[in-house]
Amino acid sequence: MIHHPPAGARDLLPLEVAQKACINDQLQQTFHRWGYQRIVTSTLEWLDTLVAGGAISAHKVIQLQDRGEGRLGLRPELTASIARAVVTRMTDNQPQRLCYRANVFRNPPEGYHGKQMEFFQAGIELLFAGGVRADAEILLLLTDCLTQLGLTDWQLILGDAGLTRSLLAKLPTPLQASVRDCITRLDYVELSQLPYPDDAAKNLALQLFDLRGTVEEVLGRLAQLNLEGECLARVDRLQALLSLVAASGDGPSNLVLDLSWLQPFDYYTGMVFQAVSRQTDNCYVLGQGGRYDQLLSQYHPQRQSFPGTGFSLNIEELHQCLLELGTLPTSTATIDYLVCPVDDAAEGAAFRHAQQLRRQHPDRRVELDLGGRSPEELHTYAETTAVGQIVWVGADGQVEATPADL
Amino acid sequence: MIHHPPAGARDLLPLEVAQKACINDQLQQTFHRWGYQRIVTSTLEWLDTLVAGGAISAHKVIQLQDRGEGRLGLRPELTASIARAVVTRMTDNQPQRLCYRANVFRNPPEGYHGKQMEFFQAGIELLFAGGVRADAEILLLLTDCLTQLGLTDWQLILGDAGLTRSLLAKLPTPLQASVRDCITRLDYVELSQLPYPDDAAKNLALQLFDLRGTVEEVLGRLAQLNLEGECLARVDRLQALLSLVAASGDGPSNLVLDLSWLQPFDYYTGMVFQAVSRQTDNCYVLGQGGRYDQLLSQYHPQRQSFPGTGFSLNIEELHQCLLELGTLPTSTATIDYLVCPVDDAAEGAAFRHAQQLRRQHPDRRVELDLGGRSPEELHTYAETTAVGQIVWVGADGQVEATPADL
Repeated sequence: MIHHPPAGARDLLPLEVAQKACINDQLQQTFHRWGYQRIVTSTLEWLDTLVAGGAISAHKVIQLQDRGEGRLGLRPELTASIARAVVTRMTDNQPQRLCYRANVFRNPPEGYHGKQMEFFQAGIELLFAGGVRADAEILLLLTDCLTQLGLTDWQLILGDAGLTRSLLAKLPTPLQASVRDCITRLDYVELSQLPYPDDAAKNLALQLFDLRGTVEEVLGRLAQLNLEGECLARVDRLQALLSLVAASGDGPSNLVLDLSWLQPFDYYTGMVFQAVSRQTDNCYVLGQGGRYDQLLSQYHPQRQSFPGTGFSLNIEELHQCLLELGTLPTSTATIDYLVCPVDDAAEGAAFRHAQQLRRQHPDRRVELDLGGRSPEELHTYAETTAVGQIVWVGADGQVEATPADL
Repeated sequence: MIHHPPAGARDLLPLEVAQKACINDQLQQTFHRWGYQRIVTSTLEWLDTLVAGGAISAHKVIQLQDRGEGRLGLRPELTASIARAVVTRMTDNQPQRLCYRANVFRNPPEGYHGKQMEFFQAGIELLFAGGVRADAEILLLLTDCLTQLGLTDWQLILGDAGLTRSLLAKLPTPLQASVRDCITRLDYVELSQLPYPDDAAKNLALQLFDLRGTVEEVLGRLAQLNLEGECLARVDRLQALLSLVAASGDGPSNLVLDLSWLQPFDYYTGMVFQAVSRQTDNCYVLGQGGRYDQLLSQYHPQRQSFPGTGFSLNIEELHQCLLELGTLPTSTATIDYLVCPVDDAAEGAAFRHAQQLRRQHPDRRVELDLGGRSPEELHTYAETTAVGQIVWVGADGQVEATPADL
């Protein structure tokens, strides 16, 4: 038998690890600068916890063998776990700024073979803060993260799940599901042929389909709908958010408003967004998030509601995008010193000298020759792996350093 | 329904995350200094891969629902995965120094409830190097890791699985399993009552039981056994290792030799070791490892053998031990600036000022007030969370900073 990794799993060799560590470190520093603190939740959760908020359907969760104690699954995302952890342990009603970097797992519906099952994400959650300032902070922090990574040409697609649902609710109840379905599938033909009771209902449905474009275009179309009540309040809030982001001077430079955006599964109640790269020929979904003001109540013993918002960034997509831009390191850190005992009697002295070099230069890399290679082979090795210096150590502790390329 | 984490799972809140990050960062820096590079393998592996080396029995592996594509499990340790990854992708026969930090999973045999299932480890593997120098490097690197963490009073328990098996092989074959079993269970009474064919066999079995103590004691007892052949060669190698570690001047200060050490499951073929804390009242197994010269062949397409050795450190045990010593941070990083708009009209200016502070001081933490708190409440919050300065920002961009404790 030959042992392969599971077909949906991948090993990351040192260069890829170093590149992804660059991305992750940059993100964590940015999160830190904005006051976010890292939390670690369990990789395994009860299936009920994972699906409670409506974030995901159970069949997408990779589940463990049921041993009669309840169904456990591997987390497909972090927000549900963080909501569960915080609502049971950290509620002092002050805004909580939390961040994470973690692996998440998703069941490819067609079977494991050839499909990726494990993904890496970094993200933040801002809990117990429900206002427009919190929404603005999320969008500005997302922008700062991508800017720090050197990404300039990306697009923010911004929707509002609450507003879109309010608009949908103005249609006759029996039609809402069909309209929602057509819009989700982008099926304009079927949408226009649904059995509407009157032209007003049909016009509203078709207008809903069309609420995507620049901020000016979409807000202009909304104004023509003569909205009132909850819809109007939600439009006002959206306008306040867009004004505040613009006034901050650091918002996304390319913003598309999409109020026709509906997803089959989500727990979002307010703004929803995706960041999409436009910098290279390929389109990468770099991150996504939104406001979820009902999710925390799912985990609260008395079903109390608390506001929450956040986003996650997709490390694999960021990595691919930055690789194409050529901004990631193309080699791993080199060995600064290769310490070689001149003979077996010099081994102790060589270990001592290597350790002395490590103490003197704590940020450098010191490798000891483990034997079995001739001086010529050592030189070849040192050249091909870009070793800085070969340091020969004698039994008496005498040291002779030569540049590796001599 | 109330949503709890699975009983065997734990959430790490920011302070514990920061403390464990301290430990992990220190370890990764030490690994880096010794020339080790980080590798990341899949969390999920085929069950056959995980149990191939004899490292673990299948019932200890947390397994996924079998969907007819083969049995997948969550890795219980990293060595098997790294061996699989390296032997199929990185064989250029130069020594490979690899390190990792990862979560591992183990099935509590009595059921999930109340038992920890997820553990964090950091460790290294040194592959394609089979000599005494490689063994010495492993023991010296382990010592350096614990020294860098501030641990001084710990004990290295060193055995040699190959030597112990060679000694056991000198007994009559039908008795070997019983003797091994008695020694594993530390059952001296039963060991002395086994049906030995002669006094020589009985003496050897009882001497085997007793091969634990200081280096001088155990080597003295070994000398009395008049060993030859493979046994003698293995004793010579062990002595060479002990001499080299002593000559390096940086070895463990407290070393116990235990040649009676046998484990029911392992893939070790040479030295085996455990690092045990003696610094506090509690006994912590901080790490463990050994040499495994047969494991890589399990994963090689042509069953070719390559030497390997390594160790893993147990982050939970290190964390507990260092907590008792009082050397870990006792609070998370404080907020340096709390930026507050004086009114809603000042929100944009406040976001701009906060971002300016982040650019000026990239290592500081800047939090924006998200509204809903009076100036008095903000002062109370700033005091209780040790905020450095409250910075009031007006709509005109005018800024007034006050120490938070005024």
